[in-house]
Parts: sequence; C-alpha cells; structure tokens
Amino acid sequence: MARGPEPISPRSPRVTAARRLARRQTRAKERRFLAEGPQAVREATADGPRGPAVEELFTTADAADRHPDVIAAARAAGARVHLADDTVVTGLSTTVTPQGIVAVCRFLDTPLDTVLAAAPRLVAVLAQVRDPGNAGTVLRCADAAGADAVVLTDASVDAYNPKCVRASAGSLFHLPVVVGVPAAEAVDGLRAHGARVLAADGAGADDLDTELDHDRLAGPTAWLFGNEAWGLPEETRALADAVVRVPIHGRAESLNLATAAAVCLYASARAQRTAGRGRSEGGHSE
Amino acid sequence: MARGPEPISPRSPRVTAARRLARRQTRAKERRFLAEGPQAVREATADGPRGPAVEELFTTADAADRHPDVIAAARAAGARVHLADDTVVTGLSTTVTPQGIVAVCRFLDTPLDTVLAAAPRLVAVLAQVRDPGNAGTVLRCADAAGADAVVLTDASVDAYNPKCVRASAGSLFHLPVVVGVPAAEAVDGLRAHGARVLAADGAGADDLDTELDHDRLAGPTAWLFGNEAWGLPEETRALADAVVRVPIHGRAESLNLATAAAVCLYASARAQRTAGRGRSEGGHSE
Repeated sequence: MARGPEPISPRSPRVTAARRLARRQTRAKERRFLAEGPQAVREATADGPRGPAVEELFTTADAADRHPDVIAAARAAGARVHLADDTVVTGLSTTVTPQGIVAVCRFLDTPLDTVLAAAPRLVAVLAQVRDPGNAGTVLRCADAAGADAVVLTDASVDAYNPKCVRASAGSLFHLPVVVGVPAAEAVDGLRAHGARVLAADGAGADDLDTELDHDRLAGPTAWLFGNEAWGLPEETRALADAVVRVPIHGRAESLNLATAAAVCLYASARAQRTAGRGRSEGGHSE
Repeated sequence: MARGPEPISPRSPRVTAARRLARRQTRAKERRFLAEGPQAVREATADGPRGPAVEELFTTADAADRHPDVIAAARAAGARVHLADDTVVTGLSTTVTPQGIVAVCRFLDTPLDTVLAAAPRLVAVLAQVRDPGNAGTVLRCADAAGADAVVLTDASVDAYNPKCVRASAGSLFHLPVVVGVPAAEAVDGLRAHGARVLAADGAGADDLDTELDHDRLAGPTAWLFGNEAWGLPEETRALADAVVRVPIHGRAESLNLATAAAVCLYASARAQRTAGRGRSEGGHSE
C-alpha cells in the first residue's frame, strides 16, 4: 500500500516557493506554474508525448479523500505529494471557492520548429490577446476543434497565468502550445510549411461564408486572432494571406474574441474533414 | 440650442430610486433597469419597433462633453438628462472603470406570442443559464448570427442583470427577448409554429456535422442551451426533437456555453442561408 501524503508546514520553503509562482516573472524564471482543482491536476498527471507535467502536489486531507485517483496518479508520475492545511492550499489558489488541491507543474510549451515539423493542418495564433480568461477559452476551443497547436505571440498574456490555465479546462495540457515568438516569425514559419494564413477581423474584406463557398478552408490553415478590444494590429493583419470576417447577420457590432474564434476554428475543422471525405469518395467513383 | 443637463443632488430621490435598480426584485417591480457606458446608452436611445428604452440619464460633465451625440439622442427620445458628479455615477455603476454615463431604461421583453406570431426561423432558448455574463454573450452571438429572438426561461438569470446587459454589448436592445416562460411552454409554442427544436448537449446522440450532412438545419430551428455547469436538465432535453452535440475533434472534454452556442447558431445561420440560395438557384435551372 502507498503511504499517505506527508504533512507540510505552512512555513515550509516549498510552500513559499510555490506561492511565488503567482508572479509571471517567477514562473518564467523557474519554468513552473500552478494548476488547481481536481480536473486540471488530473490532466497534469497524465502521460503524453511531453510526459506528465506535475512535479509537486499540495492537497488537503479532504481533497485527498475525495480524489484518491488523482493522488495516486501524481505519485505514479513521480510528484511529491504534501498534505497541507486549508490555509496553505487557499494561499496557492486564485479561485473564490478553492477545491483543496494545487499542483506545481513544469512548463509545457513546445518550440515553434517542433510544431512546424509535424506539418500542422489547423493552428490558432493569438496575437496581443491580453485577457487570460479569453486566451484559455480559445485554447479550449482550439483543442475541441482538433487544432494541432496554439501559438501565443510575444505580446500576449502568459499561457501559464492561473486564469488562463483554469479557462483552458485542461486543454493547456492537451495540445502543443508555442509561446513568446513574434507574430511575423510564427506566420512565416506556418506559411513556409504549407499553411494558408487567415487574419480574423471584423473589418475583413472577405467573409467566412465566402471562404466556405469557394472551398478555401479545406487545406492547412493558420488563424490569427487579435486583442479582445482593439483587434489585430495593422502590421499583423498585413502578414496574412486574407483578412476574413465572421458575417454579422443581425445588428450586433461584432462577436467577442472567443466566440469568433470558435466559429472560425469549427468552420475550418468541418471544411477540412468534408474535403477529406470528398476526396476519398471521388477516388472510389473513378 | 438645447439647454445643458440639469445638475442633480447625490441625495435626490431619483438617484436613490436608480440605485435600487441594482436589485433584481426592484427591477422586476419597476420594470426598469440600468444600462451603463456610451455604447449601451446609445443603443437605449435608438428608436425601433419597441421605441427607445431610455427614460432617464445620469451623466458626468466629462462624459457629456465626450458624447454629445448620446446626450442629444437621449433628449430626443424624451429622457430626463441629469448632470451628476462622479460619486453618483460610480454609485450606479457595476464596472471597475465607470465611464461616467448610466441610463435608466424601461424593460424591453417581448411576449412569447408576439415572437411566435412572426414565424421565427432561428431562436435561442436559454434554460437555467445562471451566469449573467454567459447569458449576455449568448444574446450577442444570437444577434450576430441573425437569430429572430432569444428566450430566457423562468429558471434563468435576469436578462436585465447589469453584467448581462454589458456582455450583450447592445444586443439586448436589438432583438426580441422573451423572459420568464417555462421551457416546456417555449418549446411547445416554437414547435407549433414550425420550428424543429434541438437540445445542444455534449452527450447528444447526433452531432452537428451529421445534422449539416443530412441538411437538417435548413428549416426553422430553435436551439435549447442549458446551464454552464450541469447542462440541460433531463426533462428539458426530453422536450427536444433531437439532442445534438458539437463534435469534439481533439481532447477537450467540452466547449463552454457561449462558444458552443456560437458554433450551433452559426451552423444554423449558414445552413438556412445556403438552403435559400440552393432553392432559388434550383428554380432558375428548371
């Protein structure tokens, strides 16, 4: 039988070190971040091409009782598991209702070259997105739509911000995330590897329906999404092969970032899948 | 020339009455709500089938200088315009950075029968949605996708909650909103008026791509969306003609409410528009 978790003092240097990961600078220096709640921690213990992310786990006795599978998975992943009192776990939490379990995880980001080498068919690039909740929601959408990767350019929010981690609902642990590259470098690389680059922008000359009508979304595609308030900067829009707007059929001025991204990414996902089916049916009919 | 706004005392009964509209009970009794910021107030002054919503306006001198068009439109709509100091406007605001302008508006909701009589082709029904930000975001999406109406069932958040008003980004003023009807009544009415009723649910037997492949989204459609945490209650799902999931192509467990609604509503919008075009093209080719 596995031992139970070891109790830890609220004054332990390990607690202090974990608490410092609330700051972006410390995260960047340590290349570690915090993931809280049983869902995120479970994802952090999962094995994958990048191995499990979890390094250390702080859990209350209650949470350990409620989630023995998560504790066991963390141990199996080689993480130190600490039994902590409520004040310790609450001190590491950024939610209104902490769930008693917080993991210290190592950074997961993937180099741009690794993503490009895999010839991605669908990529979301976030340029200057500043709200961590929006970035996390787009990550979750991109994962759901079957995107191969998400790129957060150098002027974007930190992917490891606790609100981004939470809004991604586990997706940060699922798909390759590239961080800190300039938009131009990401676009050049994606285009050189065969992707058509589309800037999503409410002022686009072309609309998404026209793209679909002309069967232009069937090939490898990278979508550029801009800041929630001011959209894509002109110099980033200029990098794209086309600027595409989601059609507004009613009287709304625009969609918000995450819903626009969901509509674009799912349009691509469907076009790519339908095209694949069309090609194989075409082959049989000859 | 129009007079400038009349100054109002922070202790005026009108200020106190407006401040009480922060409470749902008071809003329901008075059938009035608050809309803040120049964008929302501008929408509240716009004329339309329901007439302008604005009844009274509180503005700082700065905001009046910045938005003379809004002040003029409020006057033209017959609203009383009060010049108020920062503390008054901040006291009526629920945002972190108040923009100096808040309107008292009359309720805008439309009876279900009025919506049904117009033979709507696309309707979003929110059942037990509890987060006002989510409800407002879905309203905005429904407006953008060209929906004819949004229904918030009796167990849903208040459409006039300040966070819902704000997240709707003006859409609350654009399209008919029905509030407070039981889900079963809304579904029965919509079906009786020719709509196919689809429950959006991650556990749906059918997926959205299959619906599109079989051309089943071309006709009048009502989408049921459920609570952000627990989805649609079983008894509401059972009311629908089909339970449809947004396909998850990657490893995400689900989409959040607003992004799922965006994907469903835009799929319907495109299917309906493509079908219309197909029919008219078909007619020409005979």
